[in-house]
Amino acid sequence: MTPCPLPLRGIVPPMVTPLSGPDTLDTPGLERLVEHILGGGVHGLFLLGTTGEAPSLSYRLRRELIFQACRHVNGRVPVLVGITDTSYMESLRVAQWAAEAGAQAVVLSAPYYFPAGQPELLEYLQRLAPQLPLPVFLYNMPAMTKVVFEPETVRRAMDLERVIGLKDSSGDTAYFRQVREITRARKDWSLLVGPEHLLAQTMEWGGDGGVCGGANVHPRLFVDLFNACEAGNAARRGELVKEVAELGRLYAIGSHSSAIIKGIKCALSCLGLCEDGMAEPFSPFAEPERRRVRALVETLGAHALRA
Amino acid sequence: MTPCPLPLRGIVPPMVTPLSGPDTLDTPGLERLVEHILGGGVHGLFLLGTTGEAPSLSYRLRRELIFQACRHVNGRVPVLVGITDTSYMESLRVAQWAAEAGAQAVVLSAPYYFPAGQPELLEYLQRLAPQLPLPVFLYNMPAMTKVVFEPETVRRAMDLERVIGLKDSSGDTAYFRQVREITRARKDWSLLVGPEHLLAQTMEWGGDGGVCGGANVHPRLFVDLFNACEAGNAARRGELVKEVAELGRLYAIGSHSSAIIKGIKCALSCLGLCEDGMAEPFSPFAEPERRRVRALVETLGAHALRA
Amino acid sequence: MTPCPLPLRGIVPPMVTPLSGPDTLDTPGLERLVEHILGGGVHGLFLLGTTGEAPSLSYRLRRELIFQACRHVNGRVPVLVGITDTSYMESLRVAQWAAEAGAQAVVLSAPYYFPAGQPELLEYLQRLAPQLPLPVFLYNMPAMTKVVFEPETVRRAMDLERVIGLKDSSGDTAYFRQVREITRARKDWSLLVGPEHLLAQTMEWGGDGGVCGGANVHPRLFVDLFNACEAGNAARRGELVKEVAELGRLYAIGSHSSAIIKGIKCALSCLGLCEDGMAEPFSPFAEPERRRVRALVETLGAHALRA
Amino acid sequence: MTPCPLPLRGIVPPMVTPLSGPDTLDTPGLERLVEHILGGGVHGLFLLGTTGEAPSLSYRLRRELIFQACRHVNGRVPVLVGITDTSYMESLRVAQWAAEAGAQAVVLSAPYYFPAGQPELLEYLQRLAPQLPLPVFLYNMPAMTKVVFEPETVRRAMDLERVIGLKDSSGDTAYFRQVREITRARKDWSLLVGPEHLLAQTMEWGGDGGVCGGANVHPRLFVDLFNACEAGNAARRGELVKEVAELGRLYAIGSHSSAIIKGIKCALSCLGLCEDGMAEPFSPFAEPERRRVRALVETLGAHALRA
Repeated sequence: MTPCPLPLRGIVPPMVTPLSGPDTLDTPGLERLVEHILGGGVHGLFLLGTTGEAPSLSYRLRRELIFQACRHVNGRVPVLVGITDTSYMESLRVAQWAAEAGAQAVVLSAPYYFPAGQPELLEYLQRLAPQLPLPVFLYNMPAMTKVVFEPETVRRAMDLERVIGLKDSSGDTAYFRQVREITRARKDWSLLVGPEHLLAQTMEWGGDGGVCGGANVHPRLFVDLFNACEAGNAARRGELVKEVAELGRLYAIGSHSSAIIKGIKCALSCLGLCEDGMAEPFSPFAEPERRRVRALVETLGAHALRA
Repeated sequence: MTPCPLPLRGIVPPMVTPLSGPDTLDTPGLERLVEHILGGGVHGLFLLGTTGEAPSLSYRLRRELIFQACRHVNGRVPVLVGITDTSYMESLRVAQWAAEAGAQAVVLSAPYYFPAGQPELLEYLQRLAPQLPLPVFLYNMPAMTKVVFEPETVRRAMDLERVIGLKDSSGDTAYFRQVREITRARKDWSLLVGPEHLLAQTMEWGGDGGVCGGANVHPRLFVDLFNACEAGNAARRGELVKEVAELGRLYAIGSHSSAIIKGIKCALSCLGLCEDGMAEPFSPFAEPERRRVRALVETLGAHALRA
Repeated sequence: MTPCPLPLRGIVPPMVTPLSGPDTLDTPGLERLVEHILGGGVHGLFLLGTTGEAPSLSYRLRRELIFQACRHVNGRVPVLVGITDTSYMESLRVAQWAAEAGAQAVVLSAPYYFPAGQPELLEYLQRLAPQLPLPVFLYNMPAMTKVVFEPETVRRAMDLERVIGLKDSSGDTAYFRQVREITRARKDWSLLVGPEHLLAQTMEWGGDGGVCGGANVHPRLFVDLFNACEAGNAARRGELVKEVAELGRLYAIGSHSSAIIKGIKCALSCLGLCEDGMAEPFSPFAEPERRRVRALVETLGAHALRA
Repeated sequence: MTPCPLPLRGIVPPMVTPLSGPDTLDTPGLERLVEHILGGGVHGLFLLGTTGEAPSLSYRLRRELIFQACRHVNGRVPVLVGITDTSYMESLRVAQWAAEAGAQAVVLSAPYYFPAGQPELLEYLQRLAPQLPLPVFLYNMPAMTKVVFEPETVRRAMDLERVIGLKDSSGDTAYFRQVREITRARKDWSLLVGPEHLLAQTMEWGGDGGVCGGANVHPRLFVDLFNACEAGNAARRGELVKEVAELGRLYAIGSHSSAIIKGIKCALSCLGLCEDGMAEPFSPFAEPERRRVRALVETLGAHALRA
């Protein structure tokens, strides 16, 4: 098993979980999707995050997904596996599967039923991290978990050997900059951003890349943008930021916070990559929204997306 | 299996889950605790709620708890089992265990990672309820789940055959009264309140009783208060409301939102009923808090509590 | 000028501000309304609170209202005047008017634009209170001000000579009980509750009465309930709690948080007491809502209300 | 009076209000500060915003500030004046002063005591805008006002003749992009951003510039960054983004939400530009924080700042 590069830099798409029915993995879709994403030149693959609907899936299906996806990826890029759970034991169990399947790292947010105080959260990390079979990324996602990894907690968590980075999906740019400030000295420590429209700006602040949901649909776009940022190619960067904004129209379709995942799955289905089944409590887009997604995919150029 | 009385009225304590170590049930403690609570004359027992730390427990332990507790209760009172989960499949699985173990009903809050919109939440209930092997109580707990069962959603959910009541732990008395207004015509439909200091007042508004965490420690007190309310015995009611307030000093010990459960478990441990192990991410009270709990238990009268 | 009784106990209605047009006091309506409320046997009158739309009124109109209302009341009950403001100087100015007009006390919430930290809030009180020409009630209203007077801040504020009580409109019964615990030893210190449906219950916890918006419409009802609580007359209390609930249907009409004030003003207009003009940014109820309010007022019995 | 350029583009610093004591303008400081800011080449000046502590000031002082600042500016750049108020009449009054003093536009957020529903907010704008003597910028500041100008409300408000732009201080970049999408077709309509660390990124999304608090201290820096963005000079832009981040260390000093304004005023005082008095409920930084600010100002180079 290749170890995870330190720091992990680049585009690490949070893969959706292709479903063909209730509690049923879309296995051929999964294979096509993995090839599509890896074909875009990405730097890693993140399974079972928020975009992957992890908390909505049965553990049986999560296990199946981990093993199948790792087999398809076959060491071409590092695989990160979400192990966030309200139950410590279940987090450990999923982490064990990830290690057995050959993944490179796990990703952990705060337990999300009872909101822990920061000292409680730190102690939890201090107990859990050494028991994990793989290195771990922290995952700041307060909109879902109600709990922030406050900068001071991050500072303390950096002392834990297993903790190799943080993915910030808060959308709070002031937070991102505070955490970068704290972690700047640690050259092996990775700071990735969640909301894809913040990729370019956070790289300017010293960010290491992005966990961009839109990279399920158009991986090359985000890889190109990452490269343009790295190369300091401002003209190219400017063009690509506009393209990311275009793709972002996808997220304006539908309502409720589930719309983003529905939109991505619907677009992938329009591209013939995988089915658009959603895990409960959500349902796929109905025809009116689907029509809008299809139109957008055509505008963006299905050819380009799959190139 | 005796069916659940309709409506379920009275005191239905949300039992803590006695733990003697990580992922280890305190089996003798569980037996003593069940006897203690049932000895107080309660009208039901609620396993695997928030106070029961359900989301923090492994599924293996949840299953063990359900079977052991049901065996001890042995039909003396209805047993309700929490099945709230972010995963539809896991909710079904726990509900199946509850039915197999002989429980009378299940209790369901909103999936608590992705916040569902109200139409999504209603559809979720419409799909899930018919698949459940037991009648179901809704459980309004927005502080943990981020999602309210809005009154209009409750009104629609009342049409579902399986749905027999709602437990409101929001602490929002205006909400409680709205829901009672909506459900008043349904004499078989139960509305219970969570925060125990609201028991007497909500009964005056037509509430059916309470799911009182403090009834783990002093079940008789809440049963007496319920009876005084039923009997319209204002003088007695007034005295008991004061005693509930006294017991409530327990919740002022410690900090963070986990303090309430820690306090109850610590008090039970001081009474020699069960161990005070906490599931991750929390730890039991340390000595300073424990000393304060012990002093309070003595003030309240350990003898009275166990009477 | 009669001083404010210490503690102030009973029903202190937060009077709406009758308006006949933009920035125009409904002078005859004000007189009728004062007589109506005082006729119900209330124990005080609170001008320029939230229900009085204080922050929406011009200072000129606030001044006019203070002087006119105090003249009509003419010492029959203590008058309390809201001085909450984002500007310290304007708070002082309104307090000065209150003193000149013969009011007995002022009522102060946290400055509500910039949210102050608790140490900042305490220092603010420590500077402001000694400069006030009248005793002051604190007013806990976080839904509007974003800032709670935390129990520890209340404890410290009790040391300030001018501070004689607190009105809690948070609806958070746990908070109410904490503050009562803290202030219990001070027999001269008053704790009043905002939401009227909590009047009976909070009195059981040692509350001193209520600032009940519904007492604009039906002052006698709340005075009777207060008296029944004082007398320990449970049967009567139970009946009156039901009547308060009936009156509360008024607040279910309309939408947005402004609906409560619109509803009260509309009911008063149906009773012929005053006009229902609203200060910007709000407008009176339109005909559909007005029809529902009229029907409710008839159900409640216009005669009874004005008795 | 020169009209406001449409669209207004560039750097429009939200000037702090220099105070030498309670309710006392630091008149010489104001003059020096205006010269300092205008000397940096800014494109406008915004008085009485959040940074200007407007809601904390007496109306008398606000009036004095408007007239003095407009006199010093003397038409060199457009002056914008904050008129946000909970009272419609007071908003109109301040707007009138702004017009009399020769300002070019006013700036209006939602009334911030009672949270208006979106239809109420739109009607409020529809009634107020035609009565204003000057064109008006909307000001999205939900952290203080509790109310967002939702995109659909902005779309409708664009039809109002007086409304010429929006300043977004939400820090919510997804919101910014939605509003830009809606307003893109209106070439005369300005969209400015509040948080200064978002200036460069929002310009890439089509933003028109920034209302940067740090431009009180170092106006030239933000003007240079604006120009680099306009010119597509990526290398220069990158350097300047780093300098903005350096200046941002100022905001990490102190605690509570008031720390930003205290920090800016303290830095200006270290530069000898104006006094650092704060309006109630806040106090200037004490010596420990002041020492840190002074050290930072020296690091940044007092000379450079005043150049």
